Amino acid sequence: MTYTLVLLRHGESEWNALNLSTGWVDVNLTDKGRAEAVNGGTLLKEAGVLPDIVHTSLLRRAINTANLALDTADRHWIPVKRDWRLNERHYGALQGKNKKETLQKFGEEQFQLWRRSYDVPPPELDDSSEFSQADDVRYADIDVPRTECLKDVVERLVPYWEGEIVPDLKAGKTVLVTAHGNSLRALVKHLDGISDEDIAALNIPTAQPLVYRLDESLTPLVAGGEYLDPEAAAAAAAAVANQGR
Amino acid sequence: MTYTLVLLRHGESEWNALNLSTGWVDVNLTDKGRAEAVNGGTLLKEAGVLPDIVHTSLLRRAINTANLALDTADRHWIPVKRDWRLNERHYGALQGKNKKETLQKFGEEQFQLWRRSYDVPPPELDDSSEFSQADDVRYADIDVPRTECLKDVVERLVPYWEGEIVPDLKAGKTVLVTAHGNSLRALVKHLDGISDEDIAALNIPTAQPLVYRLDESLTPLVAGGEYLDPEAAAAAAAAVANQGR
Repeated sequence: MTYTLVLLRHGESEWNALNLSTGWVDVNLTDKGRAEAVNGGTLLKEAGVLPDIVHTSLLRRAINTANLALDTADRHWIPVKRDWRLNERHYGALQGKNKKETLQKFGEEQFQLWRRSYDVPPPELDDSSEFSQADDVRYADIDVPRTECLKDVVERLVPYWEGEIVPDLKAGKTVLVTAHGNSLRALVKHLDGISDEDIAALNIPTAQPLVYRLDESLTPLVAGGEYLDPEAAAAAAAAVANQGR
Repeated sequence: MTYTLVLLRHGESEWNALNLSTGWVDVNLTDKGRAEAVNGGTLLKEAGVLPDIVHTSLLRRAINTANLALDTADRHWIPVKRDWRLNERHYGALQGKNKKETLQKFGEEQFQLWRRSYDVPPPELDDSSEFSQADDVRYADIDVPRTECLKDVVERLVPYWEGEIVPDLKAGKTVLVTAHGNSLRALVKHLDGISDEDIAALNIPTAQPLVYRLDESLTPLVAGGEYLDPEAAAAAAAAVANQGR
């Protein structure tokens, strides 16, 4: 038995386009992002990789990416699960800040530490900030983080993977996970057994379907999975790596 | 304890615009239909009627109406349930046929019998028809109907109401049901105890939120519910009544 998992990062968001750190702020897709999502759906359809169930975060840019991609792939009717544990990393006090300005203000070393270190979170975001989710009704049942490092994301995501996604895979379903740069990095780290150091260099491009075939022990048959459009994915991943420049 | 139920018929579809009988054929919304769905979401948001969960059919025009309305109302993140029992009435051999031509070919009496009688289904659709859903993978687990009268819709819908929607209401959730002219007529018939004869005169306008407050025995506090925009709903219902003319 081989399991099929498809990872899809949301398309370009309004704040990707403005080069602002977003985190849990619930911005929408741009027109380019919507077109990327449709393209992702076309790739799924052409490859015959047809999801039986979709898991999304609680954030609009991932939800709308899933909606557009699935509508394009004629899989709009599949069951849907949503959970905050698939949300983007909370960027703390950097939420709403321009990435280039953060880089200039704090310097390359600190910027890359917050951006790509495994266990150094940015400063906490104050609950009174306009960019805080402390009073957002969709998180009423959880302790909303004030900041997160990638390690924090792994620690909230792995239980969701084991408790909610793996059972769908083991039921023989092709599972689509539509989420974010860092929640997907956390999942890929877990799947491929990437070290705390090496994960820093991994970038996930927007709206490029990444297909993992997993064996019965949930080990990837191909380390790192396979993009349906490898050339476009490589170019887009390089662009992610250069953000803030 | 009062329960809140919101019914929302999908916005104008491509085949509404062409005056074709649609049934289970999975056509998309028109631009007008998308704008109607956004307007429905604006009405929900302005009225503070905020769904905690949404139930949709398996058809694209209802799913996309729900997606657009919920995104507009900032409720895109709520849980989703989908089920074929919320699908439009299967129109049998009339699926894909022009309503005006059907009226002219079969005459007013037969046309209205198929359209609005409680228990006279149109002729069966052959499984080999391009408009059949006999081989549609989303219905692999059920016996796909070849035609349905409204009575058939009531008989499949009421168990879904009791088994899936009522438990959400009793959990205190505001429930949005995004579906179709005839699946919603079937639900309204059940809720308001409308007779087999009187249901013929009831028309549900597209993308106008219809709010029912229900008492503990699930009896509507106001018979027929309340539209958030009563004037627009009345005008749109009159337009539905005149279809085929």
